[in-house]
Amino acid sequence: MRLIDIKECATLLKSNDNFLLLCHKSPDGDTLGSAFALCLALSKMKKRVKLAKPSLTSEKLRHLVYSTQQDDFEEKFVVAVDIADSKMLDKGYESYEEKVDLCIDHHISNSRYADKILLNDKASATCEIIFELLNEMNIDIDKSIADAIYTGICTDTGCFKYSNVSAKTLKIAAKLIELGASHSEINEKMFDTKSFARLKLEATVAQNMQSFFDGKCMFSYIDEQIVEKIQAKEDDIDGLSSIPRQIEGALIGIFLREKDDCYKASVRTSGEVDASKICKKMGGGGHICAAGCELPKDLNKAKKLMISCVEEELKDRK
Amino acid sequence: MRLIDIKECATLLKSNDNFLLLCHKSPDGDTLGSAFALCLALSKMKKRVKLAKPSLTSEKLRHLVYSTQQDDFEEKFVVAVDIADSKMLDKGYESYEEKVDLCIDHHISNSRYADKILLNDKASATCEIIFELLNEMNIDIDKSIADAIYTGICTDTGCFKYSNVSAKTLKIAAKLIELGASHSEINEKMFDTKSFARLKLEATVAQNMQSFFDGKCMFSYIDEQIVEKIQAKEDDIDGLSSIPRQIEGALIGIFLREKDDCYKASVRTSGEVDASKICKKMGGGGHICAAGCELPKDLNKAKKLMISCVEEELKDRK
Repeated sequence: MRLIDIKECATLLKSNDNFLLLCHKSPDGDTLGSAFALCLALSKMKKRVKLAKPSLTSEKLRHLVYSTQQDDFEEKFVVAVDIADSKMLDKGYESYEEKVDLCIDHHISNSRYADKILLNDKASATCEIIFELLNEMNIDIDKSIADAIYTGICTDTGCFKYSNVSAKTLKIAAKLIELGASHSEINEKMFDTKSFARLKLEATVAQNMQSFFDGKCMFSYIDEQIVEKIQAKEDDIDGLSSIPRQIEGALIGIFLREKDDCYKASVRTSGEVDASKICKKMGGGGHICAAGCELPKDLNKAKKLMISCVEEELKDRK
Repeated sequence: MRLIDIKECATLLKSNDNFLLLCHKSPDGDTLGSAFALCLALSKMKKRVKLAKPSLTSEKLRHLVYSTQQDDFEEKFVVAVDIADSKMLDKGYESYEEKVDLCIDHHISNSRYADKILLNDKASATCEIIFELLNEMNIDIDKSIADAIYTGICTDTGCFKYSNVSAKTLKIAAKLIELGASHSEINEKMFDTKSFARLKLEATVAQNMQSFFDGKCMFSYIDEQIVEKIQAKEDDIDGLSSIPRQIEGALIGIFLREKDDCYKASVRTSGEVDASKICKKMGGGGHICAAGCELPKDLNKAKKLMISCVEEELKDRK
């Protein structure tokens, strides 16, 4: 394993051929956008390149699944984009665990599984790194590439909302617009369109919302019954866990989801309270602002356990 | 009335003193951010300046109400920021209708009521123009000014989501971050925090949602009862009208709100269908993507009327 810089990465790509590009499981806009952009760029360099078929869960991202008349060639150089750990390799590609020649990534937690790694944890998205890499390689960034890179950056930053956005992120986005990226169409698709099932789930989360400790902790849940009733997909459920914490005055948001033989808890905090400490009490873990754990498949019991963990944590805080 | 450019505007501000700055009614982040930033800038130039007290409806924007120990002086130069029409002057300031010396604005519909106008309808927000103006005036843009300008731009663009965003908008936002703007804190406050009442209203809109014409038209409403029950404020209700159109596949979204002696209808479209034509049938009006009209205070009657207007419009389209 060796960390390399943009220049070395550009040289590495130029001097190789017969590429296979890998995305992470539950592929998002950043891993797909990165692979799509890199695929187009390598094709422009007359390289042979194929994209691992991603196990798509979001219809919104279907346009980023690159469908070329892929040559039937044996891959000689494997690139993983936006994959922090080899355990995150997409279904059907687990056998590449120790065969990744190059990983391009922005996750601080990157487990360094690849032979060479281009890592920049200051980048808001892997697509931000891809943009700089293509510039280094003197690739003509056309509208298709600009659209793909823009999609990755806007999805990983919540449309430039999160704290991972830097001045550089916005300057790159500005250049992508100048290069023809259909920014407002992409934004509308990614952020202003939701399924009817998603809307109903959001309503359920709102109905089930309860306030604890003078609104410092907001609690909600969804059970399997509602998910089945409205035929919600994984994509519809994704992100519901952030709703409780968004309520004005909430320091802690707790969201429970009944799944299989338990309730999965997601804890979100404003950073003033440590979510991972709350979840550790129940055998889980995570980060300061986002953590998770598993609880018994009994709503009242699960709720009581979580609320008592929060109570302890709020007490310790005083 | 005369249109002026940035250079002339800078000279005009430099050669005057004893300023009164006016915001529009139901003040938003852009009018408040513009006034706040301009107020700080003029103060830095040792000018005397006071800000008209805005009739604030959103608690989120309270930090943008500039509270100086305002000198008790007689204003000699009146500046209106982000006010497209003199009818939009805030409560208590209607008498300034014909006394505005300078208007700085980005609305294409500006009614040219002021003596001199700095107008740029390509700007995403008036704050974008203010940024350029302060640069022209060689004002040192400190963190407070950067925060105010950033707030105006992010609120008027839906956090850089709407089609009014240009490459220039993003470049200015990048500079504001470099100047110290607390972008992620501002974004969280403006976009990721909602009142419990707002969440309940959104749930009500979702519960009341009905699909017409194979999902091409989505319909929902809120009545006075729910607004009273959860003690919702105007600020909580603002923007609910955009929800029906956000459902996947919807060309038209209709939202009814019971208020006083009628139901107020808001029609939103993707642009494929003309919202203003639908509303004109009921005596209302507006634009292609957003229009409104008033309907009888009888939910079933009001719904039937709107749906039949939509049906006509969808037929005409074929």
